[in-house]
Amino acid sequence: MRARVRASFARQAMMTTLGAELVSVDRGRVELGINHDARFTQQHGFMHAGAVAGVLDSACGYAAFSVMPAEAAVLTVGYSINLLAPAAGERFVMTGAVVRAGRTLVVCRGEAFADGATVPFAVMQATLTALYNRPGIEH
Amino acid sequence: MRARVRASFARQAMMTTLGAELVSVDRGRVELGINHDARFTQQHGFMHAGAVAGVLDSACGYAAFSVMPAEAAVLTVGYSINLLAPAAGERFVMTGAVVRAGRTLVVCRGEAFADGATVPFAVMQATLTALYNRPGIEH
Amino acid sequence: MRARVRASFARQAMMTTLGAELVSVDRGRVELGINHDARFTQQHGFMHAGAVAGVLDSACGYAAFSVMPAEAAVLTVGYSINLLAPAAGERFVMTGAVVRAGRTLVVCRGEAFADGATVPFAVMQATLTALYNRPGIEH
Amino acid sequence: MRARVRASFARQAMMTTLGAELVSVDRGRVELGINHDARFTQQHGFMHAGAVAGVLDSACGYAAFSVMPAEAAVLTVGYSINLLAPAAGERFVMTGAVVRAGRTLVVCRGEAFADGATVPFAVMQATLTALYNRPGIEH
Repeated sequence: MRARVRASFARQAMMTTLGAELVSVDRGRVELGINHDARFTQQHGFMHAGAVAGVLDSACGYAAFSVMPAEAAVLTVGYSINLLAPAAGERFVMTGAVVRAGRTLVVCRGEAFADGATVPFAVMQATLTALYNRPGIEH
Repeated sequence: MRARVRASFARQAMMTTLGAELVSVDRGRVELGINHDARFTQQHGFMHAGAVAGVLDSACGYAAFSVMPAEAAVLTVGYSINLLAPAAGERFVMTGAVVRAGRTLVVCRGEAFADGATVPFAVMQATLTALYNRPGIEH
Repeated sequence: MRARVRASFARQAMMTTLGAELVSVDRGRVELGINHDARFTQQHGFMHAGAVAGVLDSACGYAAFSVMPAEAAVLTVGYSINLLAPAAGERFVMTGAVVRAGRTLVVCRGEAFADGATVPFAVMQATLTALYNRPGIEH
Repeated sequence: MRARVRASFARQAMMTTLGAELVSVDRGRVELGINHDARFTQQHGFMHAGAVAGVLDSACGYAAFSVMPAEAAVLTVGYSINLLAPAAGERFVMTGAVVRAGRTLVVCRGEAFADGATVPFAVMQATLTALYNRPGIEH
């Protein structure tokens, strides 16, 4: 399972471009890390919500993927994100955890932390779907 | 108003990095454009939801900003996004439009279209807030 | 199609209890109506968000149902609602409209209006799923 | 604080009508209970999402209220709910817990459990706002 997650993550060019890395992978729980990067800021100099949401989405996606059958591909159906404070800091950790896995839909929760804080500055509720045998959509 | 939007947009390094541009700005409605870019794809080669959401979020943010007083700064409180289909295409247009503006909160709707399609492949419902006199948070 | 929608709606005891009625049914668009009712208010005397959301959810659900095959049952996967103003008024109209229908998932938009207003006091983005051959879950 | 929560909850006619009761109130965490009631079902006989969402919304609202200053009133700005399974059961417990409280906005998480299950059948991410000195909107 970890090998599948790592191989798929390595193919997400967006994560490479953002400099995101896989910190840990467990069944139903994934942690990603990212450093502040001036290329991905918004107009006040904080990390743009799009970068935060993108990494949180990937954390949730791989948490879901980690509980799916080996032949499944994962796609995000949608998510809701709340930005509780600006993404101010040098180092960010984003966690994704499975809340409940159904037949095809998996619901996950994501949390984003800055510089070792224990209270998240952003939270996500995401719905992922397992796909099978769709041409062009492998793991 | 257009000058304020353009000046603020120009300071969003994330939009520059993504290659997003302001297509049009009207009171309560903003349209952004972005081309497919292999640096921002997910594992199946489609544009990553984080890139799509980031541009939609900015479209909604500037739509909200366009109806705020000149001294306000805008921050995203949160949003919900549904990805109705993979972000497959060469050219994407993201629109943000104000649904209703309250005292401090503004709710917007975003839609993302691929290659001239009239049915969106992603939709967003976003809540933005106006901020005043916060050190470090100007327009 | 209208007959299927009306028959299913009539079986939603919650709608009967709330006094909600089907105002119109078109392919991909449903309109429901409800009157202010002191039994369903919150602590300030406005209609409770649960009543508003429940009717909006049903409007979206039947809009989705109206574009599904005749043998499908519909279930709500989730939704996001924004309450732009208190639900103040005597008569409320809630509309649900299909944004895009996929293989199994349908995304709809809901809007709630008070006393003939043209700006909604609440908006919803909902995801519905078509179910087939599930014991106990018919139309 | 508990007295304020109980007094406000008692004024939510919707909760009385649904038969919901306050199970526990702690600073930042509220638990509500509700029994299956045929008056509030959807077309398949499960509790309607509107009833589930309404009680979850109140649980989140009072969790937020419990950390607000005594003179504040609370209103729901919006929420996102995922229905992970039908609301099947006899007894439902809905919890609301504060994730983070800002100046005026408070973000909470809600979870709904059926018949003593430890995995929720519905989860909510809600944004509440504190209001001060608004005529007609007291606690």
